Amino acid sequence: MEYDGTDFSGFQSQPDRRTVQGELEQAVSKVAHKDRIIIYGSGRTDAGVHASGQVIAFDMEWKHTSEELLRAINACLPRDIVVRTLDVTSFDFNPRRCARWRSYQYRIYNAPIRSPLHIRKSWHVQAKLDLGAMESAGECLIGEHDFASFGRSPDKLGHTTRTVSRLDWRANKESIIVEIEANAFLYRMVRSIVGTLYMVGVGSWEPSVVEQVLQAKDRNMSGPLAPPQGLTLTNIKF
Amino acid sequence: MEYDGTDFSGFQSQPDRRTVQGELEQAVSKVAHKDRIIIYGSGRTDAGVHASGQVIAFDMEWKHTSEELLRAINACLPRDIVVRTLDVTSFDFNPRRCARWRSYQYRIYNAPIRSPLHIRKSWHVQAKLDLGAMESAGECLIGEHDFASFGRSPDKLGHTTRTVSRLDWRANKESIIVEIEANAFLYRMVRSIVGTLYMVGVGSWEPSVVEQVLQAKDRNMSGPLAPPQGLTLTNIKF
Repeated sequence: MEYDGTDFSGFQSQPDRRTVQGELEQAVSKVAHKDRIIIYGSGRTDAGVHASGQVIAFDMEWKHTSEELLRAINACLPRDIVVRTLDVTSFDFNPRRCARWRSYQYRIYNAPIRSPLHIRKSWHVQAKLDLGAMESAGECLIGEHDFASFGRSPDKLGHTTRTVSRLDWRANKESIIVEIEANAFLYRMVRSIVGTLYMVGVGSWEPSVVEQVLQAKDRNMSGPLAPPQGLTLTNIKF
Repeated sequence: MEYDGTDFSGFQSQPDRRTVQGELEQAVSKVAHKDRIIIYGSGRTDAGVHASGQVIAFDMEWKHTSEELLRAINACLPRDIVVRTLDVTSFDFNPRRCARWRSYQYRIYNAPIRSPLHIRKSWHVQAKLDLGAMESAGECLIGEHDFASFGRSPDKLGHTTRTVSRLDWRANKESIIVEIEANAFLYRMVRSIVGTLYMVGVGSWEPSVVEQVLQAKDRNMSGPLAPPQGLTLTNIKF
Protein backbone atom coordinates (compact mmCIF):
# COMPACT_ATOMS: atom_id res chain seq x y z
CA MET A 1 0.00 0.00 0.00
CA GLU A 2 0.92 3.66 -0.45
CA TYR A 3 0.33 6.81 1.61
CA ASP A 4 1.31 10.44 1.81
CA GLY A 5 2.37 10.72 5.46
CA THR A 6 2.05 14.53 5.68
CA ASP A 7 -1.31 14.59 7.44
CA PHE A 8 -0.89 11.49 9.64
CA SER A 9 0.43 11.10 13.19
CA GLY A 10 2.38 8.08 11.91
CA PHE A 11 1.32 4.52 11.10
CA GLN A 12 0.39 3.16 14.51
CA SER A 13 -3.10 3.73 15.98
CA GLN A 14 -3.33 6.33 18.74
CA PRO A 15 -6.49 7.60 20.44
CA ASP A 16 -7.80 10.88 18.94
CA ARG A 17 -5.07 11.03 16.30
CA ARG A 18 -5.33 10.51 12.56
CA THR A 19 -3.13 7.48 11.83
CA VAL A 20 -2.63 5.20 8.83
CA GLN A 21 -3.56 2.12 10.84
CA GLY A 22 -6.64 3.88 12.21
CA GLU A 23 -7.90 4.89 8.75
CA LEU A 24 -7.19 1.39 7.38
CA GLU A 25 -8.99 -0.31 10.27
CA GLN A 26 -12.01 1.94 9.76
CA ALA A 27 -12.14 1.21 6.04
CA VAL A 28 -11.62 -2.55 6.31
CA SER A 29 -14.04 -2.87 9.26
CA LYS A 30 -16.70 -0.99 7.28
CA VAL A 31 -16.30 -3.30 4.29
CA ALA A 32 -16.37 -6.36 6.59
CA HIS A 33 -19.36 -5.03 8.60
CA LYS A 34 -17.38 -5.59 11.82
CA ASP A 35 -16.59 -3.35 14.80
CA ARG A 36 -12.86 -3.60 14.47
CA ILE A 37 -10.68 -5.62 12.13
CA ILE A 38 -7.05 -5.33 13.30
CA ILE A 39 -4.47 -4.28 10.70
CA TYR A 40 -0.93 -5.65 11.05
CA GLY A 41 1.78 -3.56 9.35
CA SER A 42 5.32 -4.59 8.43
CA GLY A 43 6.86 -1.38 9.74
CA ARG A 44 5.65 1.53 11.87
CA THR A 45 6.47 4.71 10.01
CA ASP A 46 6.75 7.94 12.05
CA ALA A 47 4.55 11.02 11.70
CA GLY A 48 5.21 12.65 8.32
CA VAL A 49 6.95 9.61 6.79
CA HIS A 50 5.50 8.34 3.48
CA ALA A 51 5.18 4.83 2.05
CA SER A 52 4.98 3.49 -1.48
CA GLY A 53 5.50 -0.16 -0.50
CA GLN A 54 4.07 -0.76 2.99
CA VAL A 55 2.65 -4.29 3.43
CA ILE A 56 -0.25 -5.00 5.78
CA ALA A 57 -2.30 -8.06 6.70
CA PHE A 58 -5.74 -8.57 8.19
CA ASP A 59 -8.23 -11.39 8.73
CA MET A 60 -11.79 -11.15 7.38
CA GLU A 61 -14.48 -13.13 5.60
CA TRP A 62 -15.21 -12.20 2.02
CA LYS A 63 -17.33 -14.03 -0.54
CA HIS A 64 -16.29 -12.18 -3.69
CA THR A 65 -12.98 -11.79 -5.56
CA SER A 66 -9.79 -10.14 -4.23
CA GLU A 67 -10.19 -7.48 -6.91
CA GLU A 68 -13.65 -6.59 -5.62
CA LEU A 69 -12.30 -6.41 -2.04
CA LEU A 70 -9.49 -4.11 -3.20
CA ARG A 71 -11.98 -1.78 -4.88
CA ALA A 72 -14.32 -1.81 -1.86
CA ILE A 73 -11.51 -0.94 0.60
CA ASN A 74 -10.07 1.80 -1.63
CA ALA A 75 -13.54 3.33 -1.99
CA CYS A 76 -13.62 3.69 1.83
CA LEU A 77 -10.11 5.12 2.18
CA PRO A 78 -9.26 8.86 2.14
CA ARG A 79 -7.29 10.20 -0.83
CA ASP A 80 -3.94 10.11 0.97
CA ILE A 81 -4.00 6.29 1.45
CA VAL A 82 -4.46 3.53 -1.10
CA VAL A 83 -4.10 -0.25 -1.22
CA ARG A 84 -2.26 -1.06 -4.46
CA THR A 85 -2.54 -4.85 -4.57
CA LEU A 86 -4.26 -7.45 -2.43
CA ASP A 87 -3.87 -11.22 -2.14
CA VAL A 88 -5.07 -14.11 -0.01
CA THR A 89 -2.36 -15.44 2.32
CA SER A 90 -1.93 -18.11 5.00
CA PHE A 91 -3.09 -17.65 8.60
CA ASP A 92 0.47 -17.61 9.92
CA PHE A 93 1.59 -14.69 7.73
CA ASN A 94 2.64 -11.81 9.98
CA PRO A 95 3.98 -8.97 7.86
CA ARG A 96 6.36 -7.74 10.54
CA ARG A 97 7.86 -11.10 11.59
CA CYS A 98 7.95 -12.49 8.04
CA ALA A 99 9.69 -9.46 6.52
CA ARG A 100 13.28 -10.33 5.47
CA TRP A 101 14.45 -7.07 3.86
CA ARG A 102 13.08 -3.54 4.10
CA SER A 103 13.94 -0.61 1.83
CA TYR A 104 13.59 3.10 2.50
CA GLN A 105 14.32 6.06 0.27
CA TYR A 106 15.44 9.43 1.63
CA ARG A 107 15.19 12.51 -0.57
CA ILE A 108 17.18 15.73 -0.05
CA TYR A 109 16.38 18.89 -2.02
CA ASN A 110 19.79 20.56 -2.22
CA ALA A 111 19.52 24.16 -3.42
CA PRO A 112 19.96 27.64 -1.90
CA ILE A 113 16.24 28.47 -2.35
CA ARG A 114 13.45 26.25 -0.94
CA SER A 115 11.07 24.60 -3.43
CA PRO A 116 7.29 24.66 -2.76
CA LEU A 117 6.85 21.83 -5.29
CA HIS A 118 9.25 19.55 -3.37
CA ILE A 119 8.63 20.64 0.23
CA ARG A 120 6.22 17.83 1.17
CA LYS A 121 8.56 15.04 0.11
CA SER A 122 12.13 16.15 0.76
CA TRP A 123 14.50 17.73 3.24
CA HIS A 124 15.61 21.15 2.05
CA VAL A 125 19.37 21.54 2.55
CA GLN A 126 20.69 24.94 1.46
CA ALA A 127 24.44 24.29 1.73
CA LYS A 128 25.94 22.48 -1.28
CA LEU A 129 26.44 18.82 -0.34
CA ASP A 130 29.49 16.82 -1.42
CA LEU A 131 27.81 13.68 -2.76
CA GLY A 132 31.09 11.81 -3.29
CA ALA A 133 32.11 12.34 0.34
CA MET A 134 28.71 11.16 1.61
CA GLU A 135 28.88 8.09 -0.61
CA SER A 136 32.32 7.02 0.57
CA ALA A 137 31.53 7.82 4.22
CA GLY A 138 28.43 5.60 4.06
CA GLU A 139 30.30 2.52 2.84
CA CYS A 140 31.37 1.50 6.36
CA LEU A 141 27.69 1.06 7.29
CA ILE A 142 27.15 -1.77 4.80
CA GLY A 143 27.15 -5.22 6.41
CA GLU A 144 26.24 -6.54 9.85
CA HIS A 145 27.00 -4.03 12.62
CA ASP A 146 25.78 -2.88 16.00
CA PHE A 147 23.93 0.31 15.00
CA ALA A 148 23.39 1.51 18.59
CA SER A 149 24.73 4.97 17.60
CA PHE A 150 21.91 5.32 15.05
CA GLY A 151 18.82 4.42 17.03
CA ARG A 152 17.21 2.22 19.63
CA SER A 153 15.48 -1.11 19.21
CA PRO A 154 11.72 -0.96 18.70
CA ASP A 155 11.50 -3.74 21.32
CA LYS A 156 12.46 -2.96 24.90
CA LEU A 157 15.81 -4.63 25.69
CA GLY A 158 16.05 -5.72 22.04
CA HIS A 159 19.53 -5.86 20.52
CA THR A 160 20.73 -3.19 18.08
CA THR A 161 22.59 -5.33 15.54
CA ARG A 162 21.26 -5.02 11.98
CA THR A 163 22.47 -5.91 8.49
CA VAL A 164 22.51 -3.13 5.91
CA SER A 165 22.65 -4.73 2.46
CA ARG A 166 22.51 -1.67 0.25
CA LEU A 167 23.14 2.10 0.40
CA ASP A 168 22.69 3.54 -3.11
CA TRP A 169 22.88 7.21 -4.07
CA ARG A 170 21.62 9.06 -7.10
CA ALA A 171 21.38 12.74 -7.96
CA ASN A 172 18.84 14.33 -10.29
CA LYS A 173 18.97 18.11 -10.79
CA GLU A 174 18.65 19.53 -7.24
CA SER A 175 17.58 16.21 -5.68
CA ILE A 176 19.87 13.74 -3.91
CA ILE A 177 18.21 10.40 -3.25
CA VAL A 178 19.59 7.61 -1.08
CA GLU A 179 18.09 4.10 -1.02
CA ILE A 180 18.87 1.98 2.00
CA GLU A 181 18.00 -1.69 2.50
CA ALA A 182 18.42 -3.67 5.73
CA ASN A 183 17.02 -6.82 7.30
CA ALA A 184 15.36 -4.52 9.86
CA PHE A 185 15.80 -0.97 11.12
CA LEU A 186 16.16 0.55 14.55
CA TYR A 187 13.77 3.31 15.58
CA ARG A 188 14.61 6.39 13.43
CA MET A 189 17.74 4.69 12.05
CA VAL A 190 17.45 5.94 8.44
CA ARG A 191 16.91 9.54 9.53
CA SER A 192 19.86 9.29 11.93
CA ILE A 193 22.14 7.84 9.21
CA VAL A 194 21.09 10.56 6.74
CA GLY A 195 21.68 13.28 9.37
CA THR A 196 25.13 11.84 10.10
CA LEU A 197 26.09 11.66 6.41
CA TYR A 198 24.76 15.22 6.03
CA MET A 199 27.48 16.36 8.49
CA VAL A 200 30.02 14.85 6.06
CA GLY A 201 28.26 16.31 3.02
CA VAL A 202 28.42 19.89 4.32
CA GLY A 203 32.09 19.42 5.27
CA SER A 204 31.63 19.63 9.04
CA TRP A 205 32.88 16.07 9.54
CA GLU A 206 35.56 14.08 7.72
CA PRO A 207 34.17 10.94 6.01
CA SER A 208 36.16 8.80 8.49
CA VAL A 209 34.10 10.19 11.41
CA VAL A 210 31.17 7.98 10.38
CA GLU A 211 33.15 4.83 11.14
CA GLN A 212 34.04 6.31 14.56
CA VAL A 213 30.36 7.08 15.21
CA LEU A 214 29.47 3.47 14.33
CA GLN A 215 32.18 2.09 16.64
CA ALA A 216 31.13 4.34 19.55
CA LYS A 217 27.71 2.61 19.91
CA ASP A 218 26.46 5.82 21.50
CA ARG A 219 23.50 7.77 20.15
CA ASN A 220 25.03 11.08 21.29
CA MET A 221 27.78 10.63 18.71
CA SER A 222 25.57 10.60 15.59
CA GLY A 223 24.52 13.65 13.58
CA PRO A 224 21.16 15.43 13.75
CA LEU A 225 17.96 13.55 12.91
CA ALA A 226 16.96 14.29 9.30
CA PRO A 227 13.31 15.46 9.14
CA PRO A 228 10.54 12.91 8.44
CA GLN A 229 9.10 14.30 5.18
CA GLY A 230 12.15 13.18 3.14
CA LEU A 231 11.59 9.53 4.08
CA THR A 232 9.53 6.91 2.18
CA LEU A 233 9.16 3.19 2.98
CA THR A 234 9.52 1.77 -0.54
CA ASN A 235 9.69 -2.00 -0.36
CA ILE A 236 9.45 -5.09 1.86
CA LYS A 237 10.82 -8.46 0.81
CA PHE A 238 9.49 -11.66 2.41
CA MET B 1 9.09 32.09 -9.09
CA GLU B 2 7.57 28.78 -8.04
CA TYR B 3 4.34 27.81 -6.30
CA ASP B 4 2.25 24.80 -5.39
CA GLY B 5 -1.18 25.86 -6.69
CA THR B 6 -3.20 23.38 -4.59
CA ASP B 7 -4.29 25.83 -1.91
CA PHE B 8 -4.71 28.95 -4.10
CA SER B 9 -7.75 30.30 -5.95
CA GLY B 10 -5.44 30.91 -8.91
CA PHE B 11 -2.85 33.60 -9.61
CA GLN B 12 -4.98 36.72 -9.94
CA SER B 13 -6.05 38.73 -6.88
CA GLN B 14 -9.68 38.31 -5.80
CA PRO B 15 -11.34 39.76 -2.71
CA ASP B 16 -11.51 37.30 0.22
CA ARG B 17 -9.67 34.57 -1.69
CA ARG B 18 -6.14 33.25 -1.17
CA THR B 19 -4.33 34.00 -4.45
CA VAL B 20 -0.69 33.93 -5.55
CA GLN B 21 -0.77 37.61 -6.54
CA GLY B 22 -2.41 38.51 -3.23
CA GLU B 23 0.25 36.70 -1.15
CA LEU B 24 3.06 38.22 -3.25
CA GLU B 25 1.65 41.73 -2.94
CA GLN B 26 1.37 41.32 0.83
CA ALA B 27 4.96 40.09 1.12
CA VAL B 28 6.52 42.71 -1.20
CA SER B 29 4.45 45.55 0.31
CA LYS B 30 5.57 44.52 3.79
CA VAL B 31 9.24 44.54 2.76
CA ALA B 32 8.77 47.91 1.01
CA HIS B 33 6.80 49.40 3.95
CA LYS B 34 4.02 50.39 1.52
CA ASP B 35 0.23 49.86 1.51
CA ARG B 36 0.17 48.04 -1.80
CA ILE B 37 2.86 47.30 -4.34
CA ILE B 38 1.22 45.90 -7.48
CA ILE B 39 2.60 42.62 -8.85
CA TYR B 40 2.50 42.04 -12.62
CA GLY B 41 2.60 38.38 -13.70
CA SER B 42 3.40 36.93 -17.10
CA GLY B 43 0.48 34.50 -17.06
CA ARG B 44 -2.60 34.03 -14.90
CA THR B 45 -2.70 30.42 -13.80
CA ASP B 46 -6.07 28.95 -12.75
CA ALA B 47 -6.99 27.61 -9.32
CA GLY B 48 -4.98 24.45 -8.61
CA VAL B 49 -2.40 25.06 -11.36
CA HIS B 50 1.26 25.08 -10.28
CA ALA B 51 4.27 27.06 -11.49
CA SER B 52 8.00 26.40 -11.47
CA GLY B 53 8.88 29.26 -13.84
CA GLN B 54 6.37 32.11 -13.40
CA VAL B 55 7.90 35.58 -13.96
CA ILE B 56 6.62 38.66 -12.14
CA ALA B 57 7.62 42.33 -11.98
CA PHE B 58 7.04 45.13 -9.48
CA ASP B 59 8.30 48.63 -8.77
CA MET B 60 9.84 49.51 -5.40
CA GLU B 61 12.68 51.40 -3.79
CA TRP B 62 15.41 49.32 -2.18
CA LYS B 63 18.79 50.44 -0.89
CA HIS B 64 20.44 47.05 -0.43
CA THR B 65 21.43 44.25 -2.81
CA SER B 66 19.06 42.15 -4.97
CA GLU B 67 20.11 39.13 -2.96
CA GLU B 68 19.01 40.78 0.29
CA LEU B 69 15.68 41.73 -1.30
CA LEU B 70 15.17 38.13 -2.46
CA ARG B 71 15.80 36.85 1.07
CA ALA B 72 13.53 39.48 2.65
CA ILE B 73 10.62 38.68 0.30
CA ASN B 74 10.99 34.92 0.71
CA ALA B 75 11.02 35.34 4.49
CA CYS B 76 7.56 36.97 4.20
CA LEU B 77 6.09 34.39 1.81
CA PRO B 78 4.17 31.26 2.91
CA ARG B 79 5.78 27.88 2.26
CA ASP B 80 3.83 27.18 -0.92
CA ILE B 81 5.31 30.22 -2.79
CA VAL B 82 8.93 31.19 -3.37
CA VAL B 83 10.84 33.69 -5.50
CA ARG B 84 13.78 31.79 -7.03
CA THR B 85 15.77 34.62 -8.61
CA LEU B 86 15.44 38.38 -8.68
CA ASP B 87 16.99 41.06 -10.91
CA VAL B 88 16.76 44.78 -11.57
CA THR B 89 15.03 45.55 -14.89
CA SER B 90 13.97 48.60 -16.95
CA PHE B 91 10.79 50.58 -16.21
CA ASP B 92 9.14 49.45 -19.46
CA PHE B 93 9.45 45.73 -18.69
CA ASN B 94 5.96 44.22 -18.55
CA PRO B 95 6.21 40.45 -17.99
CA ARG B 96 2.99 39.74 -19.84
CA ARG B 97 3.52 41.93 -22.90
CA CYS B 98 7.26 41.18 -23.17
CA ALA B 99 6.86 37.38 -22.98
CA ARG B 100 7.68 35.74 -26.32
CA TRP B 101 7.33 32.02 -25.53
CA ARG B 102 5.57 30.25 -22.67
CA SER B 103 5.95 26.60 -21.65
CA TYR B 104 3.60 24.42 -19.65
CA GLN B 105 3.97 20.83 -18.52
CA TYR B 106 0.99 18.52 -18.03
CA ARG B 107 1.40 15.33 -16.02
CA ILE B 108 -0.89 12.28 -16.23
CA TYR B 109 -0.64 9.43 -13.73
CA ASN B 110 -1.74 6.46 -15.83
CA ALA B 111 -2.43 3.40 -13.66
CA PRO B 112 -5.49 1.41 -12.55
CA ILE B 113 -5.02 2.40 -8.88
CA ARG B 114 -4.75 6.06 -7.75
CA SER B 115 -1.49 7.21 -6.15
CA PRO B 116 -1.58 9.34 -2.96
CA LEU B 117 2.04 10.37 -3.60
CA HIS B 118 1.18 11.79 -7.06
CA ILE B 119 -2.36 13.06 -6.52
CA ARG B 120 -1.49 16.72 -5.94
CA LYS B 121 0.48 17.10 -9.16
CA SER B 122 -1.11 14.86 -11.78
CA TRP B 123 -4.34 13.76 -13.41
CA HIS B 124 -5.14 10.17 -12.53
CA VAL B 125 -6.28 8.29 -15.67
CA GLN B 126 -7.18 4.65 -14.99
CA ALA B 127 -7.61 3.42 -18.59
CA LYS B 128 -4.34 2.54 -20.32
CA LEU B 129 -3.42 5.41 -22.67
CA ASP B 130 -1.91 4.84 -26.13
CA LEU B 131 1.01 7.27 -26.01
CA GLY B 132 1.94 6.76 -29.67
CA ALA B 133 -1.59 7.63 -30.81
CA MET B 134 -1.63 10.78 -28.64
CA GLU B 135 1.76 11.82 -29.95
CA SER B 136 0.82 11.48 -33.62
CA ALA B 137 -2.62 13.08 -33.06
CA GLY B 138 -0.97 16.12 -31.46
CA GLU B 139 1.35 16.84 -34.38
CA CYS B 140 -1.32 18.78 -36.32
CA LEU B 141 -1.41 21.35 -33.49
CA ILE B 142 2.20 22.44 -34.03
CA GLY B 143 2.53 25.72 -35.94
CA GLU B 144 0.34 28.81 -36.28
CA HIS B 145 -3.38 27.98 -36.11
CA ASP B 146 -6.68 29.40 -35.00
CA PHE B 147 -7.14 27.51 -31.70
CA ALA B 148 -10.76 28.66 -31.16
CA SER B 149 -11.78 25.03 -30.50
CA PHE B 150 -9.39 24.89 -27.53
CA GLY B 151 -10.26 28.02 -25.58
CA ARG B 152 -11.20 31.68 -25.64
CA SER B 153 -8.95 34.72 -25.73
CA PRO B 154 -8.08 36.19 -22.33
CA ASP B 155 -8.95 39.61 -23.86
CA LYS B 156 -12.56 40.29 -24.84
CA LEU B 157 -12.85 40.26 -28.65
CA GLY B 158 -9.19 39.13 -28.84
CA HIS B 159 -8.28 36.82 -31.71
CA THR B 160 -7.66 33.11 -31.10
CA THR B 161 -4.66 32.49 -33.38
CA ARG B 162 -1.59 31.18 -31.58
CA THR B 163 1.69 29.52 -32.54
CA VAL B 164 2.53 26.22 -30.84
CA SER B 165 6.27 25.63 -31.25
CA ARG B 166 6.68 22.40 -29.33
CA LEU B 167 4.62 19.44 -28.08
CA ASP B 168 6.99 16.90 -26.47
CA TRP B 169 5.98 13.70 -24.73
CA ARG B 170 7.82 11.49 -22.31
CA ALA B 171 6.81 8.54 -20.18
CA ASN B 172 8.37 7.50 -16.88
CA LYS B 173 6.93 4.45 -15.08
CA GLU B 174 3.23 5.30 -14.62
CA SER B 175 3.66 8.99 -15.56
CA ILE B 176 3.03 10.51 -18.98
CA ILE B 177 4.34 14.06 -19.27
CA VAL B 178 3.66 16.46 -22.13
CA GLU B 179 5.53 19.75 -22.54
CA ILE B 180 3.87 22.39 -24.69
CA GLU B 181 5.36 25.71 -25.78
CA ALA B 182 3.51 28.53 -27.57
CA ASN B 183 3.90 32.26 -28.12
CA ALA B 184 0.79 32.66 -25.94
CA PHE B 185 -2.09 30.49 -24.76
CA LEU B 186 -5.85 30.92 -24.84
CA TYR B 187 -7.78 30.60 -21.59
CA ARG B 188 -7.56 26.90 -20.50
CA MET B 189 -5.94 25.92 -23.82
CA VAL B 190 -3.41 23.39 -22.45
CA ARG B 191 -6.07 21.59 -20.39
CA SER B 192 -8.38 21.49 -23.40
CA ILE B 193 -5.63 20.10 -25.67
CA VAL B 194 -4.72 17.45 -23.08
CA GLY B 195 -8.40 16.49 -22.65
CA THR B 196 -8.78 16.19 -26.43
CA LEU B 197 -5.65 14.04 -26.80
CA TYR B 198 -6.88 11.93 -23.87
CA MET B 199 -9.92 10.98 -26.03
CA VAL B 200 -7.45 9.63 -28.60
CA GLY B 201 -5.32 7.96 -25.93
CA VAL B 202 -8.22 5.94 -24.52
CA GLY B 203 -9.30 4.96 -28.04
CA SER B 204 -12.59 6.88 -28.10
CA TRP B 205 -11.43 9.08 -30.98
CA GLU B 206 -9.24 8.31 -34.00
CA PRO B 207 -6.05 10.43 -34.08
CA SER B 208 -7.40 12.20 -37.20
CA VAL B 209 -10.30 13.65 -35.17
CA VAL B 210 -7.91 16.17 -33.55
CA GLU B 211 -7.29 17.84 -36.91
CA GLN B 212 -11.09 18.02 -37.44
CA VAL B 213 -11.53 19.59 -33.98
CA LEU B 214 -8.87 22.19 -34.85
CA GLN B 215 -10.54 23.01 -38.20
CA ALA B 216 -14.00 23.32 -36.60
CA LYS B 217 -13.03 26.41 -34.55
CA ASP B 218 -15.80 25.46 -32.15
CA ARG B 219 -15.21 24.85 -28.44
CA ASN B 220 -18.01 22.26 -28.32
CA MET B 221 -15.94 19.98 -30.54
CA SER B 222 -12.95 19.56 -28.20
CA GLY B 223 -12.58 16.87 -25.53
CA PRO B 224 -13.16 17.31 -21.77
CA LEU B 225 -11.09 19.82 -19.82
CA ALA B 226 -8.21 18.02 -18.08
CA PRO B 227 -8.15 18.87 -14.34
CA PRO B 228 -5.92 21.72 -13.09
CA GLN B 229 -3.61 19.82 -10.71
CA GLY B 230 -1.70 18.17 -13.61
CA LEU B 231 -0.64 21.53 -15.02
CA THR B 232 2.54 23.50 -14.26
CA LEU B 233 3.75 26.74 -15.86
CA THR B 234 7.42 25.88 -16.35
CA ASN B 235 9.11 28.63 -18.35
CA ILE B 236 8.74 32.07 -19.97
CA LYS B 237 11.12 33.32 -22.65
CA PHE B 238 11.48 37.07 -23.29
